Amino acid sequence: MLGEEIAFGPGKADLLDAIARTGSIAAAARDMEMSYRRAWLLVDAMNRCFRNPLVNSTSGGNQRGGASLTDTGHDVLRQYRALQQSLDAAADAQRASLEQMLRRKPAP
Amino acid sequence: MLGEEIAFGPGKADLLDAIARTGSIAAAARDMEMSYRRAWLLVDAMNRCFRNPLVNSTSGGNQRGGASLTDTGHDVLRQYRALQQSLDAAADAQRASLEQMLRRKPAP
Repeated sequence: MLGEEIAFGPGKADLLDAIARTGSIAAAARDMEMSYRRAWLLVDAMNRCFRNPLVNSTSGGNQRGGASLTDTGHDVLRQYRALQQSLDAAADAQRASLEQMLRRKPAP
Repeated sequence: MLGEEIAFGPGKADLLDAIARTGSIAAAARDMEMSYRRAWLLVDAMNRCFRNPLVNSTSGGNQRGGASLTDTGHDVLRQYRALQQSLDAAADAQRASLEQMLRRKPAP
């Protein structure tokens, strides 16, 4: 969060991955089955929330041109994936012991 | 989750804490500003989802008597709090570095 705005999260991370993979916001939006407008708004929010932009759109603004991650974009994405892995690892280690105490099916 | 049912989570953990502190489901419900019926349903769900009950109600069933955590209840609560702490610790370590890349306020 940055103030009231969601600076980064799982959906934005997946969108960055899709932009890196496809080379454009429009193609990334299609891949993720979201509207171009929604993808563009998510990119705009990220670019405004971070000190440096995360995505470069080569034709800029609202035009549908090529897009790529900046160095900051790659860095934020890498750190976010590392954070997710740490949380998953921390959860897995302790969750197993809790889950062993569950029944297989809820009692009626 | 156990099947479709939420076996345990932050609200149920807080309810167990309140039952341990107050010694009754009714008093725990008042403390948490929820209805007795809702507290009772949450306790019932926990008791059905785990192999052993987490809460003993001394007058049993739907009567409003004393209640306490079983050994399993204490154990689940302790392990859940440890899980939360691990996740918080894992998040704190890596989140700081991501947050340093944010602006102080969203750009307009």
